[in-house]
Amino acid sequence: MVRFFVSSEELKQEEAALTEENAQHAKVLRLKPGETVLLCDGEGHEGVCEVVSTDGWRLRMLRRRDSQSEAAVKVSVYMALPKADKLEHVIQKATELGAYEIVTFPSARCVSRPDEKSLKKKLERWEKIAASAAEQSGRGRIPKVIVLNSLSEALARAAQADKALMFYEHEEALTLKMALSTGSFGTVSLLTGPEGGLEEAEVAQAREAGLQVCTLGKRILRCETAPLCALSAVMYQAGEF
Amino acid sequence: MVRFFVSSEELKQEEAALTEENAQHAKVLRLKPGETVLLCDGEGHEGVCEVVSTDGWRLRMLRRRDSQSEAAVKVSVYMALPKADKLEHVIQKATELGAYEIVTFPSARCVSRPDEKSLKKKLERWEKIAASAAEQSGRGRIPKVIVLNSLSEALARAAQADKALMFYEHEEALTLKMALSTGSFGTVSLLTGPEGGLEEAEVAQAREAGLQVCTLGKRILRCETAPLCALSAVMYQAGEF
Repeated sequence: MVRFFVSSEELKQEEAALTEENAQHAKVLRLKPGETVLLCDGEGHEGVCEVVSTDGWRLRMLRRRDSQSEAAVKVSVYMALPKADKLEHVIQKATELGAYEIVTFPSARCVSRPDEKSLKKKLERWEKIAASAAEQSGRGRIPKVIVLNSLSEALARAAQADKALMFYEHEEALTLKMALSTGSFGTVSLLTGPEGGLEEAEVAQAREAGLQVCTLGKRILRCETAPLCALSAVMYQAGEF
Repeated sequence: MVRFFVSSEELKQEEAALTEENAQHAKVLRLKPGETVLLCDGEGHEGVCEVVSTDGWRLRMLRRRDSQSEAAVKVSVYMALPKADKLEHVIQKATELGAYEIVTFPSARCVSRPDEKSLKKKLERWEKIAASAAEQSGRGRIPKVIVLNSLSEALARAAQADKALMFYEHEEALTLKMALSTGSFGTVSLLTGPEGGLEEAEVAQAREAGLQVCTLGKRILRCETAPLCALSAVMYQAGEF
């Protein structure tokens, strides 16, 4: 079924209309009266609608339901701010792979240090990338992109998950599999470093904050590969595929 | 330990020398006599060497061993030929993630149809990407990049693995986890489609050839995301991290 993202307000109405980009998209797809489409609010709710008229793209709500394509486990990807294109890559891929949210923050070895103004602009771009990837991959929820001010803030937030994990290339003993094998989990935080890696003091700080420090194996992964590898494994472990 | 890729012949000698790019790299790193370095043949063998002299970068072999960073499981990534930059991305990332080899081939919906001459040039480029990613990720083996002429050829080759799997977005019943849960495996083939996906007839042909057809979950993954997601999960399942 074709899917359109609309506001939460629009999803609550019995009659809706496709406007702007959605209307253009409907035109391109040559939707016809009687066909059914899916409206999604980007927050996990959706409505099955019938096209009433192509003139103004009016729709009638048939039934509402929770999104069918969201993962049961909520995985938050915490990534220390890398250079711009890498975070964009991670946002796109993590969205496809079903991440609940993507959180970025500065850490000691971050090269990228955008000022507030450029950060605001970047955030808008990141949100667009998440929305577009959510649409393409058929998700019912657009992951939030969140910018925090410090590693401390990120650690305190990440630690609230059932499984709060940091990945560190010098850790050898604790594997992700071991970390996930004890107890059940509904929420997971996965924290990874920037291009230059995490500093030892930051790893100690993470342990202090309650995170478990894990390895992703014997090979050194690039900063943009590590979070996606970990996310894929968590989704697999959680029974998503 | 700093690592240099050399030929198999050089690794067999009791005395070696770093030449060309390796010598330049050694100079940049300011290696000193008495320091130890690792020579790798790119095929899983390595030698621990002592720097004898910085004049000509002469080395003395201390001991040889199997590479410490190769995965026990041999995973072959079979990807129907996508547009150029996507295959490059997959080669780089699959190498980091520990793939044994990357195999590409044309399938019905492939947009990219390079002629023999341009394919030869591309292959050279792909091999360079694999070598560079192997070096960066600390691998002892450079995955081979292999180009086959048809899907039939790819299926026959892929089917020889202990677990031969194709991923198809319309498969819902068999998960990767189910496919991997029966019996042990030392070799795995993971086959994914191009941008436009696989055709139903191709999926039937794969079953015929002995491949199991699996889902990667409820979200539609881009053609370059699917193989890396599957590879990460297989490495996780095999106990790599």
